[in-house]
Amino acid sequence: MADKKLVEAITSMEEDFAQWYTDVVKKAELIDYTTVKGCMVIRPAGYAIWELIQKDLDRRFKETGVQNVYLPMFIPESLLNKEKDHVEGFAPEVAWVTHGGLEPLQERLCVRPTSETLFCDYYKNVVQSYRDLPQVCNQWCSVVRWEKETRPFLRSREFLWQEGHTAHATAEEAEERTLQMLNVYSDFLEETLAIPAIKGRKTDKEKFAGAVATYTVEALMHDGKALQSGTSHNFGDGFAQAFGVQFTDKDNTLKYVHQTSWGMTTRLIGAVIMVHGDDSGLKLPPAVAPVQVMIIPIQQKKEGVLDKAYEMRDRLAKVAGGSLRVKVDDTDKSPGWKFSEQEMRGIPMRIEIGPKDMEAGKCVIARRDTGEKIEVADADLETKVPEILESIQKDMLEKARAHRDEHTYSAANMDEFRKIFAEKAGFVKAMWCGEQDCEDRIKEELSVTSRCMPFEQEKISETCVCCGKPAKHMVYWGRAY
Amino acid sequence: MADKKLVEAITSMEEDFAQWYTDVVKKAELIDYTTVKGCMVIRPAGYAIWELIQKDLDRRFKETGVQNVYLPMFIPESLLNKEKDHVEGFAPEVAWVTHGGLEPLQERLCVRPTSETLFCDYYKNVVQSYRDLPQVCNQWCSVVRWEKETRPFLRSREFLWQEGHTAHATAEEAEERTLQMLNVYSDFLEETLAIPAIKGRKTDKEKFAGAVATYTVEALMHDGKALQSGTSHNFGDGFAQAFGVQFTDKDNTLKYVHQTSWGMTTRLIGAVIMVHGDDSGLKLPPAVAPVQVMIIPIQQKKEGVLDKAYEMRDRLAKVAGGSLRVKVDDTDKSPGWKFSEQEMRGIPMRIEIGPKDMEAGKCVIARRDTGEKIEVADADLETKVPEILESIQKDMLEKARAHRDEHTYSAANMDEFRKIFAEKAGFVKAMWCGEQDCEDRIKEELSVTSRCMPFEQEKISETCVCCGKPAKHMVYWGRAY
Repeated sequence: MADKKLVEAITSMEEDFAQWYTDVVKKAELIDYTTVKGCMVIRPAGYAIWELIQKDLDRRFKETGVQNVYLPMFIPESLLNKEKDHVEGFAPEVAWVTHGGLEPLQERLCVRPTSETLFCDYYKNVVQSYRDLPQVCNQWCSVVRWEKETRPFLRSREFLWQEGHTAHATAEEAEERTLQMLNVYSDFLEETLAIPAIKGRKTDKEKFAGAVATYTVEALMHDGKALQSGTSHNFGDGFAQAFGVQFTDKDNTLKYVHQTSWGMTTRLIGAVIMVHGDDSGLKLPPAVAPVQVMIIPIQQKKEGVLDKAYEMRDRLAKVAGGSLRVKVDDTDKSPGWKFSEQEMRGIPMRIEIGPKDMEAGKCVIARRDTGEKIEVADADLETKVPEILESIQKDMLEKARAHRDEHTYSAANMDEFRKIFAEKAGFVKAMWCGEQDCEDRIKEELSVTSRCMPFEQEKISETCVCCGKPAKHMVYWGRAY
Repeated sequence: MADKKLVEAITSMEEDFAQWYTDVVKKAELIDYTTVKGCMVIRPAGYAIWELIQKDLDRRFKETGVQNVYLPMFIPESLLNKEKDHVEGFAPEVAWVTHGGLEPLQERLCVRPTSETLFCDYYKNVVQSYRDLPQVCNQWCSVVRWEKETRPFLRSREFLWQEGHTAHATAEEAEERTLQMLNVYSDFLEETLAIPAIKGRKTDKEKFAGAVATYTVEALMHDGKALQSGTSHNFGDGFAQAFGVQFTDKDNTLKYVHQTSWGMTTRLIGAVIMVHGDDSGLKLPPAVAPVQVMIIPIQQKKEGVLDKAYEMRDRLAKVAGGSLRVKVDDTDKSPGWKFSEQEMRGIPMRIEIGPKDMEAGKCVIARRDTGEKIEVADADLETKVPEILESIQKDMLEKARAHRDEHTYSAANMDEFRKIFAEKAGFVKAMWCGEQDCEDRIKEELSVTSRCMPFEQEKISETCVCCGKPAKHMVYWGRAY
């Protein structure tokens, strides 16, 4: 039996989803607040998830030829100002450094909110000929955006991310890379975070400042709100023109490069919490669980029990090329308290082992995702544990997919549209004429934004849900984080 | 034969060591300068070395129980000001953020030059009882110090590092952790970077702002100058008192924690360059070489040659658990040019394979460290390559150790001391009375600083080399980067 005290420490999801979220990030010890306003401490249990995300994404990047680099964290104001749309998008929310040591700076520097301008400055130096292309770089770093309202992982003044920046000889190659990385993101979300994603293109209103096209992977949280989980931008040669990034092509003429950028951030940890969690706390997919299996001894003071627990841990350490992450909770807390902690922290699997189990030559495996308890013969430990972890990973994705599908609606006209958002929360598929005016009106009336024009288009109706003019695109609409 | 043009692109070490260094970092494509003054771009070839350093160090940290975290990059001025020595040491060289978005900040924030103050702020929140101790955290991040003179990797306004910060219940435990991490650094330098280090304690003059004791690993560069390569600090309970970091001990009394911090930075890449490099460029120890083996086909247009090169690469990919990093240079450059590039980039081993070798059932392995060429039978490839890489790693350390020992001198009095630094460059062992006055005088006259009081003390003479009073410590002196 799980201990009630720890469970009661968090608000129930149905009662207050926002408070439940805040409780979970605190009680699972993922973050801590600081005296630095709008910033957070990512604690060991939170950072370990980020390390697993990094490792997995980084491997996927490198398989497509990405190389990591590190560029300065400061952008001189004159450099930021070079691309007009970009500076308009970011200048209102950057932090400015005006003094270095005891002296005022001649030119103020902003702390990077994103690094397109710096990468242009760099590529301008290292790209001369078509032989120097493509440039396919990425950096892992922190960026700063001076947000007014902040929430752990979802929106903070500083956050961690990766930003990929590429330069290509042709427009086709740039578009190909933009979509390639969107697919990497989508695969990563499904395979690693067990989060199904809608892939699509942002409307002009929602696209990145300075981009020709922004593609996105959109996920649905448990409360029916959308979370933009990763974006991939095609810049065409706009930045190259603004920064003069040119190369001599095979035909001996001078051309501008075509660029892309793409990023994912620590808000993914927020996505994992809000897609999978429940009233007992966090639920981590095994692929990003810093501890995948917690062995909890029952009556651990009885002779042999702790030794048995360690023996099981050591046996599991040899399974699957040593890749399983297994721990024994041998603290002097009660088993009930340990169960609650393991559940709160989202550890996917618990193994209970006590004197009676030992006598019967078995142990009990409890799945965090379903609560199911499975008796496993001691001799089957090495085969069953990886097998069940794999099921958990798979089933968590399917459960999230079912939840998303159940909370995806269609609206053929404004009445239906209003009715859905008055009564329900989720994605709404509805047609759009392509005019920003309709997007603005929908946003004003329903506080709903266009999430994306999905690659998988359907025809919900003939006309725009808002103005009644002929429809051009099906759009996923939703309230978003 | 290596191509002369590329080699001639770098200044010889004997002619101008500083210029040689600058040439190597540029020509080996480790860094690029930027329009952000005093900052640098770490290019793919440079960043890949840093990734290998991180991976190795991070593994060593975790083996000692370290957990990674991430704290904000900004420090409010009032927080920085809490520990008097610390703020005096750092305030003159920090960058100040004064505006967020379009608004001036109520309190200015510095960009972290180091994070002791933030960790105190964090530990104050999460440490209540002896059960919450020890806290053994580390973060990988970038820090900013507003240097006037900068040099790639060695001194720049922003650099990458790791900073470990721990809190303990007792003074003994803190001292133990301080020395434990110094040993981790020393082992890492020797085993991974092939750099022998002198371990010792800094004098009060040279210790970290706010520390009770600073320990250091000091390395000797090829030009006879010293490089502080890693430091580990014991803070006692000074920071805890300034920040109020207290815990209830087992005896139910309130006590201050004892803290440590320890760091290594991207300047290690500078150390690798300056310890191992030569007039042909970089020389990387295999453990941190992003490419360990470059296979260079000779007469690659002849039938079967390229296929043979790929076959060898694929065979080597299966050796040593897939851990070898092997590439084929199949570009259309001349073999001589490829040789020079491989040497410039410090790739530890080259394999030459051409039609004649194929006929004879062999290949030629060229060691970057010694220039030695070794004929290897095709059938022995899988055993010989890891064996030779291991020798290279070992021999590079021994060569560096021999160089250091040859450039370590002893001085019993000021005349000997002066003579050595007038004629030679290296470490000088000499006795010291323990008074800062003598350190100051030596620095003023000879531009030499105390590098450390080594753990392995010797008795060079009975009296202080400077004032003639009774000697307390043997000190390593040197000119330093």
